[in-house]
Amino acid sequence: MRAPQSELPIVAADIMERLRERRPRVHCITNAVAQNFTANMLLAARAVPSMTIAPAEIRSFVQRADALLVNLGTFDAERRKAALAAVAVANKRRIPWVLDPVFIDRSPPRASFAKRLAVLKPRAVRLNPAEFGALATGKTDDNAVARYAKARRTVVGLTGARDLVRDAERLAIVANGHPLMARVTAMGCAVSALTAACLAVESDPWRAQAAALILIGVAGEIAAGRARGPGSFAVEIIDAVYGLQRDAVIASAKVS
Amino acid sequence: MRAPQSELPIVAADIMERLRERRPRVHCITNAVAQNFTANMLLAARAVPSMTIAPAEIRSFVQRADALLVNLGTFDAERRKAALAAVAVANKRRIPWVLDPVFIDRSPPRASFAKRLAVLKPRAVRLNPAEFGALATGKTDDNAVARYAKARRTVVGLTGARDLVRDAERLAIVANGHPLMARVTAMGCAVSALTAACLAVESDPWRAQAAALILIGVAGEIAAGRARGPGSFAVEIIDAVYGLQRDAVIASAKVS
Amino acid sequence: MRAPQSELPIVAADIMERLRERRPRVHCITNAVAQNFTANMLLAARAVPSMTIAPAEIRSFVQRADALLVNLGTFDAERRKAALAAVAVANKRRIPWVLDPVFIDRSPPRASFAKRLAVLKPRAVRLNPAEFGALATGKTDDNAVARYAKARRTVVGLTGARDLVRDAERLAIVANGHPLMARVTAMGCAVSALTAACLAVESDPWRAQAAALILIGVAGEIAAGRARGPGSFAVEIIDAVYGLQRDAVIASAKVS
Repeated sequence: MRAPQSELPIVAADIMERLRERRPRVHCITNAVAQNFTANMLLAARAVPSMTIAPAEIRSFVQRADALLVNLGTFDAERRKAALAAVAVANKRRIPWVLDPVFIDRSPPRASFAKRLAVLKPRAVRLNPAEFGALATGKTDDNAVARYAKARRTVVGLTGARDLVRDAERLAIVANGHPLMARVTAMGCAVSALTAACLAVESDPWRAQAAALILIGVAGEIAAGRARGPGSFAVEIIDAVYGLQRDAVIASAKVS
Repeated sequence: MRAPQSELPIVAADIMERLRERRPRVHCITNAVAQNFTANMLLAARAVPSMTIAPAEIRSFVQRADALLVNLGTFDAERRKAALAAVAVANKRRIPWVLDPVFIDRSPPRASFAKRLAVLKPRAVRLNPAEFGALATGKTDDNAVARYAKARRTVVGLTGARDLVRDAERLAIVANGHPLMARVTAMGCAVSALTAACLAVESDPWRAQAAALILIGVAGEIAAGRARGPGSFAVEIIDAVYGLQRDAVIASAKVS
Repeated sequence: MRAPQSELPIVAADIMERLRERRPRVHCITNAVAQNFTANMLLAARAVPSMTIAPAEIRSFVQRADALLVNLGTFDAERRKAALAAVAVANKRRIPWVLDPVFIDRSPPRASFAKRLAVLKPRAVRLNPAEFGALATGKTDDNAVARYAKARRTVVGLTGARDLVRDAERLAIVANGHPLMARVTAMGCAVSALTAACLAVESDPWRAQAAALILIGVAGEIAAGRARGPGSFAVEIIDAVYGLQRDAVIASAKVS
């Protein structure tokens, strides 16, 4: 029997093609800094973004969505209400959703709210090690991540120089990407949105999370080859996601 | 007598030049996703954007503006109040304004609010067929659009692969543009803002709406020739609007 | 004794290098149009931006920041509260802060609030002549600026075709920059954010303000040489700030 990781390059390419065929609707509750870049990233992947947080209509948008992103980067009262209402609708309708607990290591009230959301069964939690430390017990090693994923029955996408994708039983390490990704604001937020899009077309959240990280990582490598700095990199990575080729994804994916 | 459509390429070039000379102030109540791109599009056309929605100062900004955009893409209570206050000032001072009822087909409360605004005499309503269906009777054929324009004494700019510009008596079809325009978030919002700018320098709203669609469509074709995907396209279309040449506008306009 | 201005090119290069080494945290209360561009500008300079305005956590973010920006471009009640809370924390902890009173010449209530903030000891006030007229006595000549700087014990960065940097005793004139900077939205806001970053690594606010204007001005000249219009200029200036070379800064700075 082959290791499940070995299939991920082809899985990522398949998911990319499904996004282009099905054009899933992804509703994003996300922060003000990230909204424009996130919407353009989703459009480049052929998903259809929406972004409203108004209490009067959030349920209406989520009901018709194929996936939901809840990003805590802007932490106002309206977005908190919107997040809880949106998650309730998503769970009732079995619409997959992603939690991105941005900067919870910098703000205790934000960490509390993230913990409250984390028990509401996100299919995936995409975050960095500092944020994971604030969400869980403080430890950020692989065992701590594995325990968290098992206890919460979710997938953890822990991103950094190398990305870990963890569910209760499986671990994948994605080594794609480029340091310029950390020099563009909202790049992590866009990755979380792309994870939501992948969840809309792939029922195994571990595969969906890994695919999102492979696709953005390969696109980041292509973009870095064309960019002069972080300004052009932010433009080129949108173009690269839009133009990703199946063969290049499979050949360039670095998964173990 | 020549058909009124035949003059539109020259009208569009004239309006473009008037924007560059007069640099009209355009106040935009628009959504969070669109604000930055919209401001840069207006600046590229040489208009001067402002974007506040604060109740304490919205009247002050609108009074000194040459045109107003009301875009419903972010539908919070503050923006609704701001929209009503802004339209009241605009109508009192005869400042032209544009309604862009974003995504009203996805949200009944938003559709209700759009209908309420639509009776307050926008000079132009810029929207797509699904949004028009939610605003009017559900039908989106040319007869329905013509009836709506006549009943509301407004101009409808119905955008898609081909754009329709309708008032009570005249119809223009603008066939400029490029499919990548649909892969950049807030492109429609920016077109509506450009329509407001054109209304600031052209008293015939049918001509102003057609000019905005011709100018952005020709710029989109130029940008597509230089872009690798939607990321670079979003950059190139700003440059193309900034650098549009009178002769190229007239030669490239596809109007019937 | 040499004039203090003669040292500014080297000071600017030194400050640039300190930013790259120390990567200061800059908390920004800024407007919705500017947030994304501002964050990317700070990241290009190697600073670490944060942007929250939520009452529950603003203190937590400012306490851990190395500098603070208060930009009035979005003037809602939440941002006003956030600004006052943030300034109180900054002053208590001696964290330097910058005031950017955007568009106060267009809105009397915004001007009143700016005056209230201006007495709370910002290290620098970055604004244009129309905004300075609304903040001070209406006059915008160098004497008026010098009197204001002395009375408020602050540094005024008055930007335009040429930039003035004034404290009680010293004046520097920075002649770097390019007209395309005025055709990109939020460019002034980004300059103010860069000023905050410079204050985090330089205790003399006159030098910090001058350095920010030299660095962005030289970057603007490099970007203009590569750009086709304001769309590509906005991308290129981020790349140029990221890639600025010490020798080029010193050779290109135009200070008197």
